[in-house]
Amino acid sequence: MNFSSKLMEQAVDAFTSLPGIGKKSALRLVLHLINQETSDVEQFVESIKQLKKNIRSCKVCHNLSDHDICGICSDIHRNKDEICVVETIRDVMAIENTGQYRGVYHILGGVIRPIEGIGPDQLSIDSLIQRIQKNSPKEVVMAISPTIEGETTTFYISKQLKEFDIKISTIARGVSFGGELQYADELTLGRSIIARTPYHISK
Amino acid sequence: MNFSSKLMEQAVDAFTSLPGIGKKSALRLVLHLINQETSDVEQFVESIKQLKKNIRSCKVCHNLSDHDICGICSDIHRNKDEICVVETIRDVMAIENTGQYRGVYHILGGVIRPIEGIGPDQLSIDSLIQRIQKNSPKEVVMAISPTIEGETTTFYISKQLKEFDIKISTIARGVSFGGELQYADELTLGRSIIARTPYHISK
Repeated sequence: MNFSSKLMEQAVDAFTSLPGIGKKSALRLVLHLINQETSDVEQFVESIKQLKKNIRSCKVCHNLSDHDICGICSDIHRNKDEICVVETIRDVMAIENTGQYRGVYHILGGVIRPIEGIGPDQLSIDSLIQRIQKNSPKEVVMAISPTIEGETTTFYISKQLKEFDIKISTIARGVSFGGELQYADELTLGRSIIARTPYHISK
Repeated sequence: MNFSSKLMEQAVDAFTSLPGIGKKSALRLVLHLINQETSDVEQFVESIKQLKKNIRSCKVCHNLSDHDICGICSDIHRNKDEICVVETIRDVMAIENTGQYRGVYHILGGVIRPIEGIGPDQLSIDSLIQRIQKNSPKEVVMAISPTIEGETTTFYISKQLKEFDIKISTIARGVSFGGELQYADELTLGRSIIARTPYHISK
């Protein structure tokens, strides 16, 4: 691309460094910012600066937070007896969006991937065990993706938790609601037949 | 979306205000920035601030520039006798990328669109006329999109320039190179037959 302005080129390069933004999108964003009010651009820039400066990891669950303890962990209405173990903060957001869970979380920061050099020590598994030792919750809900690495991680953590008097559960796996059976993948369908659950008729 | 952090929510909102970026993309960008080095984020922010603070419109051609006169207008190797009239700076970049033009530009800032309240006075047509009066170039190349509004604008400007002793040309319109004739639209194909040009065989 031929830029008439060095400043514009630098700004386009800055945006291009972000994931999923190519040269053309970056140019569109830069031209948009040039046309905005200075105060709006300053607000945009300030929100990024503040984010980077002040965001931290919750000392209890490792969720991203404005304070040392995140909003979920410090909420007195949340059930501290249930800890839901997830990979990333995106999973926390996804589960929170369902509105179906009122316990607290523990964010691992990923799953065990030996090929990428991510072993149990790279994940916050130790802090989960310490947390269980300290607070003795009643249940740990494993909400980790049902991939090979995810299943391995679920298995590894469950084994570590065996010594504690604690209920371990995993989120239900099976065919998706609203999906047609003929389009479900074989593995999911096969396992959901094996793991069939009693059907309750409401009288 | 359920955010555990106000700072994150603000940053996501800031990105969402940009064109073509939805909530999910914004979240991805924000999570990416959180994981970047502080110095990299500062550089990102700084490049946007500097852009907004220092970018200006070239006093001659209205191109975006770091200085009062843009790089193209101040380049002694560019032919000042040819002025290419375009809608936006994107068009300048597109033409520059072809490497086929060595004259200078004049950026209108759009085309005449009465419905949107954009008349000739909202475009930099007066400054084009002043420029021609002052520098008496030899040729004005109209490189405006061949849409209804674009054609109207080309016609309007050409009429304004009638009083000057100046050659007015438009970029060639016709079927695209590399395109198959059967897929060309009727209007383009029809006009390209009417405006057929002599074929030169190199001996």
